[in-house]
Amino acid sequence: MKAMRLIDIDGPSLDVIETIVERAVALSKGSEPLAQTHTIANVFFEPSTRTRVSFEMAATRLGLRVINLDGERSSMTKGESVLDTLATLHAMGVELAVLRHGHTGICHELSEQLPPSLGLINAGDGCGHHPTQALLDAATLTAKGVRLSEAKVVICGDLRHSRVARSNVALLKRLGVGEIGLAGPEALMPAPGSGFDGLRHYDNLDAALIDADVVMMLRVQKERMDESDGGLDLADYHLHWGLTTERLAKAKPECWVMHPGPMNRGVELSAQVADGPQSLILDQVRMSVFTRMAIFEALLS
Amino acid sequence: MKAMRLIDIDGPSLDVIETIVERAVALSKGSEPLAQTHTIANVFFEPSTRTRVSFEMAATRLGLRVINLDGERSSMTKGESVLDTLATLHAMGVELAVLRHGHTGICHELSEQLPPSLGLINAGDGCGHHPTQALLDAATLTAKGVRLSEAKVVICGDLRHSRVARSNVALLKRLGVGEIGLAGPEALMPAPGSGFDGLRHYDNLDAALIDADVVMMLRVQKERMDESDGGLDLADYHLHWGLTTERLAKAKPECWVMHPGPMNRGVELSAQVADGPQSLILDQVRMSVFTRMAIFEALLS
Amino acid sequence: MKAMRLIDIDGPSLDVIETIVERAVALSKGSEPLAQTHTIANVFFEPSTRTRVSFEMAATRLGLRVINLDGERSSMTKGESVLDTLATLHAMGVELAVLRHGHTGICHELSEQLPPSLGLINAGDGCGHHPTQALLDAATLTAKGVRLSEAKVVICGDLRHSRVARSNVALLKRLGVGEIGLAGPEALMPAPGSGFDGLRHYDNLDAALIDADVVMMLRVQKERMDESDGGLDLADYHLHWGLTTERLAKAKPECWVMHPGPMNRGVELSAQVADGPQSLILDQVRMSVFTRMAIFEALLS
Repeated sequence: MKAMRLIDIDGPSLDVIETIVERAVALSKGSEPLAQTHTIANVFFEPSTRTRVSFEMAATRLGLRVINLDGERSSMTKGESVLDTLATLHAMGVELAVLRHGHTGICHELSEQLPPSLGLINAGDGCGHHPTQALLDAATLTAKGVRLSEAKVVICGDLRHSRVARSNVALLKRLGVGEIGLAGPEALMPAPGSGFDGLRHYDNLDAALIDADVVMMLRVQKERMDESDGGLDLADYHLHWGLTTERLAKAKPECWVMHPGPMNRGVELSAQVADGPQSLILDQVRMSVFTRMAIFEALLS
Repeated sequence: MKAMRLIDIDGPSLDVIETIVERAVALSKGSEPLAQTHTIANVFFEPSTRTRVSFEMAATRLGLRVINLDGERSSMTKGESVLDTLATLHAMGVELAVLRHGHTGICHELSEQLPPSLGLINAGDGCGHHPTQALLDAATLTAKGVRLSEAKVVICGDLRHSRVARSNVALLKRLGVGEIGLAGPEALMPAPGSGFDGLRHYDNLDAALIDADVVMMLRVQKERMDESDGGLDLADYHLHWGLTTERLAKAKPECWVMHPGPMNRGVELSAQVADGPQSLILDQVRMSVFTRMAIFEALLS
Repeated sequence: MKAMRLIDIDGPSLDVIETIVERAVALSKGSEPLAQTHTIANVFFEPSTRTRVSFEMAATRLGLRVINLDGERSSMTKGESVLDTLATLHAMGVELAVLRHGHTGICHELSEQLPPSLGLINAGDGCGHHPTQALLDAATLTAKGVRLSEAKVVICGDLRHSRVARSNVALLKRLGVGEIGLAGPEALMPAPGSGFDGLRHYDNLDAALIDADVVMMLRVQKERMDESDGGLDLADYHLHWGLTTERLAKAKPECWVMHPGPMNRGVELSAQVADGPQSLILDQVRMSVFTRMAIFEALLS
């Protein structure tokens, strides 16, 4: 039997995607989860507590058995490939692996080589994809009643390196979103052919926000930026690209603010906006559990 | 709904305190735990296996779901405050957080800012409070039939930095203990106004032990002492403040010996005393699980 | 009540050993596990994910409660002996500890000192013993229908430092194996009196493989070898002692290939052999869970 996999947003059919989003919303409103008896493993080679805990919460609520593997500290990887590690876990009874890894494209590579009966969820690969984040963002907006086909969504920040942005753009396109606008420093704009072609770039956030229904702020990854840009000035970044109450007023009055977390208050957005009535940041966290439950249900059933 | 919190010993009513102590004793004698379906998180920013495992054992015996978060290694905290971390966990479904943190007073600060529906247990904050340790010590003595109102309790060691001592003194006072005596090196005596006022200080352990029913030995925190004292001599410490069989003979014949662990054999007490018939050290460990079960029951019901 | 322990292969009766091996095979074929309500702890002072996860999988399939303790990062061990750590866990309700530690002989030492009611499984001690690995290897061969009494088994590699080899030799002898052959570099041959006496040493693998039914390749522990041998040349090792398809052809046509993992492809064996039809490497991983379930059942019942 071939296990189902979620490697990027282009993999599953639109039908499966819509089922996941609708099921996540239903679960968040109290639908009974389908009891599961499978065993999954969280295999994280990059530090991530937020995503790991969210997958663990989702799994335990379904009654799944969960093995947590801290790949960075794992002896399993001494002189052993990620492929051998996952094959070993599968031989031990793990039926689906949730993988985060710093190497862009690793889930696509593994998907060809793994035992066909092992399920795989890409929980973020380098600068590649992060499909479950995109699905939970869509579920969050759907739960709030946003009609994507009529909406303008602005994504602002380091689009060049963001797997969150890439997966969100892919999903919003498939869901037929009205308009996607990109904003951020010139040096951090996406390379041609990297999944963002044909979208409008704004060279300032104020202009991008006009008529926006949703604005997704991307995390400033300080460590990376410091290196590649000879020291990004965070105060300067906030001045030009940070979302403040004043700036948010340029968008539609009911414009929603999203952020994948963890956020840098005072950098990509002000504390006032983060905690304000238009912020969906904690809603995203809440929906992350329900969406991952829906994903497990879809892949394991 | 406002969740219950246990931040320090002065928070809960005497009624709640007595219920916890009595319930812990009952559980240790075989009472059936109340089944729980809540989710809790152990969030530890200071290394602690003993306390963390004890909370985990207590939670799993009640049927609670437990998320373990190693705060020191958590990416959740990169550029993110403890407040945001806990709010995020709460949004994921965590109903009560057990927090250990090196910053004195952090639980009091957080208690004002956290979502009211998130429960919080202080599992030790810097040099502040450690209320669950005090409660388990009281439950241990109660299970042994010690009548606190008639007892003399001696606390010996680094009282200045000890959250264990501060919480024990607060609890013993509320429970109407007969007498509390303090002993330890002059430099490690508590500052005025820090919760120890009005108690008798002894400048040597032999004098303090006369007529004692209970002696609580505090852990020598080598790392801290080495710094602040230009190298504390451990052999010298043991000579003056270590509990030996000879010294223990000055107390009442049935005087109980306690230590919060992990102990340094040969420093704060001799191996003979630690393993002797008057030692309650393993009883404290055993009661730690039952007491934390009783605390969970009280806070989550 | 005295808890049962598995410290080395010489401890249990042949009856218990045979029960474990047969039960592991039965479990692997679908026998219902005996439900357990005990609490165990995995206490690992050496990095090991493979063995730790395997014990955790085995325990959770039986319904056991599992506490994972990373000994290297545990504050429980600051100024505290392994003995005190295990006694503390026992006082908290842990009924059986699975211990891995770098110190050779520690499980034998602890076995004398621990509370008699605490069970103990040696999950690898320094260069000493690794009895559960030997049992799972025997179960793997049994499940494949190998008749050990008529088999020639070759063990190849660093026999001097290998707890895997020592426990396998002890078990194969007790099970009345036909012949055991040893092969490996002169400098890594076992010392006299270390459990390998009376076995035939081959000074090249090709000669050892003639008529072999099973060949167990040992892991090259790069870190150790580099130090003790002034830099072992891995390519040179592979040339002389690596198992390749050509070399394997010297053995019986149906000769099985085993490796305890994690393997260094291209060092102790070629990728072609590791993934070939004679390889039992993933079978060993699979049987590791069933064997450890059988061991828990035997020790906890």
